[in-house]
Amino acid sequence: MKAARLHGYHEALKLEEVEEPKALGPLDVVVRIGAAGLCRTDLHIQEGQWASRSQVELPYTPGHENAGWIHEIGSAVTNVQRGDTVIVHPFITCGLCPACRRGDDMHCENGSFPGINRDGGFADFLLTSARSVVKLGPGLEPKDIAALADAGLTAIHAVKKAIPVLGAGTRVVVIGAGGLGHIGIQCLKAMTPAEVIVVDPSEKALALAGEMGADQTVRVDGSKHVETVKEMTDGFGAEAIIDFVGEKGAIEDGIAMVRDGGFYYVIGYGENIDIPTIDVISREISFIGNLVGTYADLEELMTLTAQGQVTLHTSTYPLDAINDAMADLDGGRLQGRGILIPAGA
Amino acid sequence: MKAARLHGYHEALKLEEVEEPKALGPLDVVVRIGAAGLCRTDLHIQEGQWASRSQVELPYTPGHENAGWIHEIGSAVTNVQRGDTVIVHPFITCGLCPACRRGDDMHCENGSFPGINRDGGFADFLLTSARSVVKLGPGLEPKDIAALADAGLTAIHAVKKAIPVLGAGTRVVVIGAGGLGHIGIQCLKAMTPAEVIVVDPSEKALALAGEMGADQTVRVDGSKHVETVKEMTDGFGAEAIIDFVGEKGAIEDGIAMVRDGGFYYVIGYGENIDIPTIDVISREISFIGNLVGTYADLEELMTLTAQGQVTLHTSTYPLDAINDAMADLDGGRLQGRGILIPAGA
Amino acid sequence: MKAARLHGYHEALKLEEVEEPKALGPLDVVVRIGAAGLCRTDLHIQEGQWASRSQVELPYTPGHENAGWIHEIGSAVTNVQRGDTVIVHPFITCGLCPACRRGDDMHCENGSFPGINRDGGFADFLLTSARSVVKLGPGLEPKDIAALADAGLTAIHAVKKAIPVLGAGTRVVVIGAGGLGHIGIQCLKAMTPAEVIVVDPSEKALALAGEMGADQTVRVDGSKHVETVKEMTDGFGAEAIIDFVGEKGAIEDGIAMVRDGGFYYVIGYGENIDIPTIDVISREISFIGNLVGTYADLEELMTLTAQGQVTLHTSTYPLDAINDAMADLDGGRLQGRGILIPAGA
Amino acid sequence: MKAARLHGYHEALKLEEVEEPKALGPLDVVVRIGAAGLCRTDLHIQEGQWASRSQVELPYTPGHENAGWIHEIGSAVTNVQRGDTVIVHPFITCGLCPACRRGDDMHCENGSFPGINRDGGFADFLLTSARSVVKLGPGLEPKDIAALADAGLTAIHAVKKAIPVLGAGTRVVVIGAGGLGHIGIQCLKAMTPAEVIVVDPSEKALALAGEMGADQTVRVDGSKHVETVKEMTDGFGAEAIIDFVGEKGAIEDGIAMVRDGGFYYVIGYGENIDIPTIDVISREISFIGNLVGTYADLEELMTLTAQGQVTLHTSTYPLDAINDAMADLDGGRLQGRGILIPAGA
Repeated sequence: MKAARLHGYHEALKLEEVEEPKALGPLDVVVRIGAAGLCRTDLHIQEGQWASRSQVELPYTPGHENAGWIHEIGSAVTNVQRGDTVIVHPFITCGLCPACRRGDDMHCENGSFPGINRDGGFADFLLTSARSVVKLGPGLEPKDIAALADAGLTAIHAVKKAIPVLGAGTRVVVIGAGGLGHIGIQCLKAMTPAEVIVVDPSEKALALAGEMGADQTVRVDGSKHVETVKEMTDGFGAEAIIDFVGEKGAIEDGIAMVRDGGFYYVIGYGENIDIPTIDVISREISFIGNLVGTYADLEELMTLTAQGQVTLHTSTYPLDAINDAMADLDGGRLQGRGILIPAGA
Repeated sequence: MKAARLHGYHEALKLEEVEEPKALGPLDVVVRIGAAGLCRTDLHIQEGQWASRSQVELPYTPGHENAGWIHEIGSAVTNVQRGDTVIVHPFITCGLCPACRRGDDMHCENGSFPGINRDGGFADFLLTSARSVVKLGPGLEPKDIAALADAGLTAIHAVKKAIPVLGAGTRVVVIGAGGLGHIGIQCLKAMTPAEVIVVDPSEKALALAGEMGADQTVRVDGSKHVETVKEMTDGFGAEAIIDFVGEKGAIEDGIAMVRDGGFYYVIGYGENIDIPTIDVISREISFIGNLVGTYADLEELMTLTAQGQVTLHTSTYPLDAINDAMADLDGGRLQGRGILIPAGA
Repeated sequence: MKAARLHGYHEALKLEEVEEPKALGPLDVVVRIGAAGLCRTDLHIQEGQWASRSQVELPYTPGHENAGWIHEIGSAVTNVQRGDTVIVHPFITCGLCPACRRGDDMHCENGSFPGINRDGGFADFLLTSARSVVKLGPGLEPKDIAALADAGLTAIHAVKKAIPVLGAGTRVVVIGAGGLGHIGIQCLKAMTPAEVIVVDPSEKALALAGEMGADQTVRVDGSKHVETVKEMTDGFGAEAIIDFVGEKGAIEDGIAMVRDGGFYYVIGYGENIDIPTIDVISREISFIGNLVGTYADLEELMTLTAQGQVTLHTSTYPLDAINDAMADLDGGRLQGRGILIPAGA
Repeated sequence: MKAARLHGYHEALKLEEVEEPKALGPLDVVVRIGAAGLCRTDLHIQEGQWASRSQVELPYTPGHENAGWIHEIGSAVTNVQRGDTVIVHPFITCGLCPACRRGDDMHCENGSFPGINRDGGFADFLLTSARSVVKLGPGLEPKDIAALADAGLTAIHAVKKAIPVLGAGTRVVVIGAGGLGHIGIQCLKAMTPAEVIVVDPSEKALALAGEMGADQTVRVDGSKHVETVKEMTDGFGAEAIIDFVGEKGAIEDGIAMVRDGGFYYVIGYGENIDIPTIDVISREISFIGNLVGTYADLEELMTLTAQGQVTLHTSTYPLDAINDAMADLDGGRLQGRGILIPAGA
């Protein structure tokens, strides 16, 4: 099969012929890739930022946002069969450790992450597990939903944690209306009655936020946007901050915009949270970490998508053009989420 | 009446005659002080650290951990009568704002704090509100429970937040077995099935922790104690950290000892939480701020105390000797919590 | 002032002159009635069904769904002033008992219920408490929202309890799309991502349900409707049943339509829940009782209404015509909720 | 191997030679039985009460409370190996359906129940799944813990549901201090700060309850015990009722003893819950169904047992004497839980 592989850090990916994976283990599943999302993390992988963290051996195939059709199944697989359309949960989990048994799969003690520390989906086929595939209803196409496998899944996971503090009359500030943010806004509108205020430096992103259902949009501008949000929240700040940025001043802004007693959901990363403990206690504010979501979260997101409550903005490229797509992403020329389509899909 | 008042920062308190407070408002309550706890915050007040924050006008009377007997009640007071023994919740709340209506009194929009920003309990009498007094059962004496009004109330508030993550088989690390910590340990043992591991630099504090019910005690020693706790938790770390220290390395230790997916409860203060957001998300850890507890928390703490599940270690001084008590606290010579007793009590 | 009073059971109400109430207590509030909702419970009161339960002494003034303007306030009232538009929470609570302190006002140990066990709002003025009035924003008129004080408040209270079990991809069956049901449907759509299936014998009620946002409507028809709902839920039944009827077969239907592991919210009343415990345990189903909501619930409902997420269908009558309104309600001729307007309002 | 099999309803079990089960499927596990608990349900099976419900084909081997040692494992089993001591969760689950993925295994769409609808553990060996075995620490012996696999698991499952309503100062009434009840009492004391009141007709059972940690015991006696409990709870009733009986007046008593706003946990079965909906709503009481617990619940229970917080009272019999054991259970001569031990164990 064809695969786009990384042979050396800071090098372009190489399209080459490699052997097709086989479903040798009883719960193995081989997915014929229909679409694979391109993520800023793929640029970071190419730059070597994940080398020591993932300890992946080169060459290998990136691609961690995958959807397609079941091609081959192991002997013990009962939940899907050849031909089923599926989205692929990004983590391969054991199903037997305490975390898996509680439904908290992302803390599986024995997990692996295709596209990060083993071969991923920038290829014709992907080897994963029966535990990592969600069967899709008839209306959903791989190219329309692949990017929900990671970006969307992270967004819904954070939003679900915030539901208990977002009753009627509360406000939530979404920092960043990009790839994850525009899905987060839709999840918030679908799952809570809170007023959604979106903060972003880009007018274009704010316009998209408005289309996605944001109740208020505020352009980042010095520190005026923080004042504007404080006014919108009667001087108190918002019950919840959902920060999809995590750098370039977002954290200081977020801390200033959260209400005393409120919650700050950390998703974007880059800089540090650096806050005196006296502020944490006297204001009684909390910081909630958020990893990518569970398998059950992905099922819920697929339902919202099938119901039309969540939609993705994408630009498609043939898999052959992956290096162009990566250059476009790096250069800020990529509109919406980049999606790679193998030749035969 | 007699009161110990602060006339200037960095000066000793002055014992002097001042006018007795009156219950003029319909919900006012005057408490005859039976005992008032001495807190490290009282030293910080004397040093002027709270001057700009509380904006209190000198001279005034500190003392925010109070218990005694009802002396006079306003026209609309129905929950207590003259002679009742009470512990005094430290915050005076309005009862009408949204936070009060949800039972979340500490975020009252109209609150005030006797001993911090108005006259407190280092005196014969204290003016507070019907909403701030908890009537005590016959077995409880002011001098035995006064320090629960703030130190104990903060400890139980944090422990109650941790209950949902502390099921059977989980571990909780308590950092600091001092004034708050020794109450926190007792609350944890009474309210959860978790294994309690206590970390402190003092052998004496660890011995007290053992008496209070700690399952394991570990002396702070370079970074070895962190390794020891990791081993005690199968290499994973603990589901919850309850940090009563918040300085001198406690925060770095706490972050190293919390399990991925776990929760860090911030109570002690002094230094900063300073952590890369990539660690917050990739480890999915959360930091939970904790203020002093609600009125309902104080009622629960009084029940645990009446049941003998929580007891306090104290040293008593006459109110006249307050400057000696403060010197003893500052000099590390005070055993347990210092308690001041007015002459007539 | 004018008041419509009940002098004897099974008699018409009498419009008569009575003395205006005064705000004598420090937290008393007198409301000039702008609108009072008419409820089926008012018919039951007239029939004497509540005589022994409420132990009210005749003559008295019914009317427990009230809104209007603040006319007079007691000496300790700080949250409203003369002229403010308010909706009246139906229960007068003490603010000091443990239930009130937790925000669980409906279980106040010292409460009273105007219109049920003391004079209510079928009059020019109503005596209530500062703790029972919610100040309204400029867009809300008494006649448009009065019926939310009881009917709407009960509906939102039940829906809020169901939020944790109504994630994306779940289904909820609403039994009954009448006075409470049509508000419940709107609350469910505003506060959860669940698919809402409405069951009712009336085509007209189902049409209204559809306008209010129901995703599916099913006409009650022998036992076919139960089969239809089972099919709509893949044979499993729904995660939650919200039963606004409680009689005429609703309970048996509801039990048949709830999924194993699911929750049945009881709001309508009339007949018995009668179910073998072996079914309760082997199917692990739960029955959740629901009283009228708290003050905080009413604030949330007012926010949803101000945001346009909840609207009421009403027919107005002058207070003088109250006996006509009651006859219309009894005779099934009243469209939407009946609202009574005093002459001067 | 030897197995005690049921060939006809109302007949004694027959000890006979049958073929040993094999671990043919990839997740199959064969357990060498060390001990199997005898349950009243086994008598009901023999009497044919479960014939239509389980649709099991005779002859078959009952026994659903099993513990022992791993004898053989399938090709994909990674969590246990030959020789490990294990307790067997009673349900075999698929691990792939939505309920399994949320950790809610008991609602697995594809489950089976050894001892109920397929061969169970009254034998030398039992076929189950890798997903149904919990590996035990060195201190735990099969004969000491087998009965926790069902009786104990049901008790801890119900207690865990009650934790959120059982804060300090609350009361819980346990109805029935028998096989499940005496474990439930220990779980309540280990996991909550609530005061535990135990109600039972037998003085002997109440004495055991006291040893297990009950704070108060009340002998069932006409309706006096209900009055006694009301007095113990200040006239209000208890925040929670945990009913391990479900017949012989327990339900009426339980409803009378629960506080308004409280929760009734249904575990024992036999008679009907039959209550007017007007009482359910006006008192806002809830009935919570409880099935046997999840795999994670069983892990928690094993931890409490290893910590010495839960202990079982048992009488052992050789497997050969199973019909004697069943006769003793039926005749009320069996002290504690009956445990059957195969010859070679």
